[in-house]
Amino acid sequence: MPDPQRELRFPHRHLLGIEGLSPLDIAILLDLADEAVEVSRQVEKKRSTLRGRTLINLFFEASTRTQSSFELAGKRLGADVMNMSVASSSVKKGETLIDTAMTLNAMRPDIIVVRHAQAGAVHLLAKKVDCAVVNAGDGAHEHPTQALLDALTIRRNKGKVAGLIVAICGDILHSRVARSNILLLSALGARVRAVGPSTLLPAGLKRMGIETFTDMKAGLRDADIVMMLRLQRERMQGGFIPSAREFFRFFGLDEAKLAFAKPDALVMHPGPMNRGVEIDSAVADGAHSRIREQVEMGVAVRMAVLEALAQHLPNG
Amino acid sequence: MPDPQRELRFPHRHLLGIEGLSPLDIAILLDLADEAVEVSRQVEKKRSTLRGRTLINLFFEASTRTQSSFELAGKRLGADVMNMSVASSSVKKGETLIDTAMTLNAMRPDIIVVRHAQAGAVHLLAKKVDCAVVNAGDGAHEHPTQALLDALTIRRNKGKVAGLIVAICGDILHSRVARSNILLLSALGARVRAVGPSTLLPAGLKRMGIETFTDMKAGLRDADIVMMLRLQRERMQGGFIPSAREFFRFFGLDEAKLAFAKPDALVMHPGPMNRGVEIDSAVADGAHSRIREQVEMGVAVRMAVLEALAQHLPNG
Amino acid sequence: MPDPQRELRFPHRHLLGIEGLSPLDIAILLDLADEAVEVSRQVEKKRSTLRGRTLINLFFEASTRTQSSFELAGKRLGADVMNMSVASSSVKKGETLIDTAMTLNAMRPDIIVVRHAQAGAVHLLAKKVDCAVVNAGDGAHEHPTQALLDALTIRRNKGKVAGLIVAICGDILHSRVARSNILLLSALGARVRAVGPSTLLPAGLKRMGIETFTDMKAGLRDADIVMMLRLQRERMQGGFIPSAREFFRFFGLDEAKLAFAKPDALVMHPGPMNRGVEIDSAVADGAHSRIREQVEMGVAVRMAVLEALAQHLPNG
Repeated sequence: MPDPQRELRFPHRHLLGIEGLSPLDIAILLDLADEAVEVSRQVEKKRSTLRGRTLINLFFEASTRTQSSFELAGKRLGADVMNMSVASSSVKKGETLIDTAMTLNAMRPDIIVVRHAQAGAVHLLAKKVDCAVVNAGDGAHEHPTQALLDALTIRRNKGKVAGLIVAICGDILHSRVARSNILLLSALGARVRAVGPSTLLPAGLKRMGIETFTDMKAGLRDADIVMMLRLQRERMQGGFIPSAREFFRFFGLDEAKLAFAKPDALVMHPGPMNRGVEIDSAVADGAHSRIREQVEMGVAVRMAVLEALAQHLPNG
Repeated sequence: MPDPQRELRFPHRHLLGIEGLSPLDIAILLDLADEAVEVSRQVEKKRSTLRGRTLINLFFEASTRTQSSFELAGKRLGADVMNMSVASSSVKKGETLIDTAMTLNAMRPDIIVVRHAQAGAVHLLAKKVDCAVVNAGDGAHEHPTQALLDALTIRRNKGKVAGLIVAICGDILHSRVARSNILLLSALGARVRAVGPSTLLPAGLKRMGIETFTDMKAGLRDADIVMMLRLQRERMQGGFIPSAREFFRFFGLDEAKLAFAKPDALVMHPGPMNRGVEIDSAVADGAHSRIREQVEMGVAVRMAVLEALAQHLPNG
Repeated sequence: MPDPQRELRFPHRHLLGIEGLSPLDIAILLDLADEAVEVSRQVEKKRSTLRGRTLINLFFEASTRTQSSFELAGKRLGADVMNMSVASSSVKKGETLIDTAMTLNAMRPDIIVVRHAQAGAVHLLAKKVDCAVVNAGDGAHEHPTQALLDALTIRRNKGKVAGLIVAICGDILHSRVARSNILLLSALGARVRAVGPSTLLPAGLKRMGIETFTDMKAGLRDADIVMMLRLQRERMQGGFIPSAREFFRFFGLDEAKLAFAKPDALVMHPGPMNRGVEIDSAVADGAHSRIREQVEMGVAVRMAVLEALAQHLPNG
């Protein structure tokens, strides 16, 4: 007879992406995150789950927000946290990425959190090291903890994810956040739409069961969740680069466009926001916005992921 | 009947400046700091006052000295300390300052220590966040913990502050250190003088009851404390910029000029020093100097401030 | 009667170099390091030897590898660790180095770990401060913890150091690693050879009892240990600068050259490697390589050094 406790253990050694996670895997992480929210709301924001463990934050791309979130998550679980910001200029070859990873691995960390500019770099790294690996964003590929914190925010506000209409809007082509969210929200049974200029909608969305819209009015109609993305001009090489003003006019979320969504729709954004480009300040700071709550859920989800992976460490 | 213990509690949620502090508020902090000095002199330099609390060091201007001092103060009180150095180039708008602050606030820190190039930025931030805020220097406005550590150094060496003649010398116009010190030392009853070239003496000093001098001989006569400031050329836009050599000749503190002060006068400097510009090495390293002691008092004062503000945190 | 326990105590307050250490001093550190290896292999990688102590990592030259190794060593011993990376551009005068050191000293750290671009800077600093000082590399002078970790790796693999033939190969002229290793391995009775182009062999090796070779075939013959160095082009001013391709042809370690050494020879490299310049990837990742193990021994040796110096701290 299977041990029911055992059944509910997160069954993966690493968290490399949402791809490959079952709805149950996701639910295990979100349930752990619900508990972790309470830890950070206590006076003494501390658990001892990772006491004496070593967590390395290895960031080949700068990200104050995500790195901070993982740093606090690790510290609140009692881990020794070491930040390593590696200028991407000094890491030109895949070989050197692996040398860096193997060097850190030899220092016997328990978990390495990695952000890298290249899609797939984190998977490559995970094959080489002995410790657990968490993908904190790899190129335009995946950013699984962002999708998990978005799902947590939705679940806590709406009581469920299944059946909700989620409109992901803006620069979907260059967004690892969009990709991870599409995978996760679809897995949990949401109806996911992609809304943006046709030049920023990747091919293949329809094959994944995602409805696409090039008009905000149609795309937002009856939406329960309006998830705005940052316009990532730095990733647009050649081709169509919209002006901020024009983009805002057609795709920036203001109160007029938000009115097409359900009256109790939630507005979300992974941050950092370009106010006046993809989102109007009145909406960003308005009653529908859950943008600050997303940040809080970010720390909780990262604590949950670290705790889930710790179960697979020796004596975890 | 009021609880006397309660009376002696520091009555402010934030430390944004010396302005607004009563002499009793200042005395409470200095008394706490006297105790904190002993903590750092112990083998095990550790208190548990902030155990499980989160302290964020948010520096929009680089400052190894002040940031280190707050980092050690937080760690010695048992807090989880997170450093965030934000390049000021990436923070052009006040809007973005607030977005950064609100994002960090959502991670549920207990205390944020902030340094920012703009006067008033820290006050603005304090209005937006739920946690306690400490001003670690905002533009040419205030640097309250520097003034507190200076007062602590004086009080420990002279047994009092009231009645002492304190000559603050040099680039007073651009100095937040001077401003905070004038407020604090005046509040405690010292006779404060401002000494420097007329171009570096701000208007309004006389209205604050500060005697001004453009001659070091007159300004230092019978002084108990000679407090030198760093010549801040980087803040001088247009107008008169003195050469180092000329400045040293007229306003640099050497043994000849120091001879005008009282025989037991103390020499102080907030650091980092420009040796040979505002101060001669022989004086900086001489018997009158308390410059190293100021650094030690800096850690103690910051511990005191963190402990005082912690009393206002939930269950603090 | 002397206390035997007392006899085995490491008798130095600082670790500034291998020069001045007796074979017994070295053995004490290596024995402590053998124990420290086990700490990092435990689930809870934690000792309380430095609980409540302050360790400052003061790096005037960037070094992710060595700094990380000291950071983890300090944290695993329970110390509060503070990293300070000081751009060398801002520290032009020896005076300023000392001001920085004295400022940090006033914050009452227990141990300062220093890396600096100038030979002798760390000795100068040690004379000024009250705390223990560890040299983490000073110019082309010494890098004692690297030599200790190399010796530990050799001793654990070969059971001894005395009598072994160690060929140190490549850019010996610019290498503080080579210098510290020559001192240490000679002290422990190894037969040390220096192998490289004559332009990269410093004068005076023969006087130290080191055999020199300009031919890899002759230099590696019957070697027990082949220790490759990084070609440090950044330190070559004027004069002969070899091309990577030419250097690899004559002095890069590939399987053909390694065949001249003993069949059970170990290959070592302090990292980071220039693959294809001083070492071939097949050898770097091959069965003879102990390069990853060196990194693990690095954390252990640094823990050992910190523990040894802690014995000299008050109540240590």
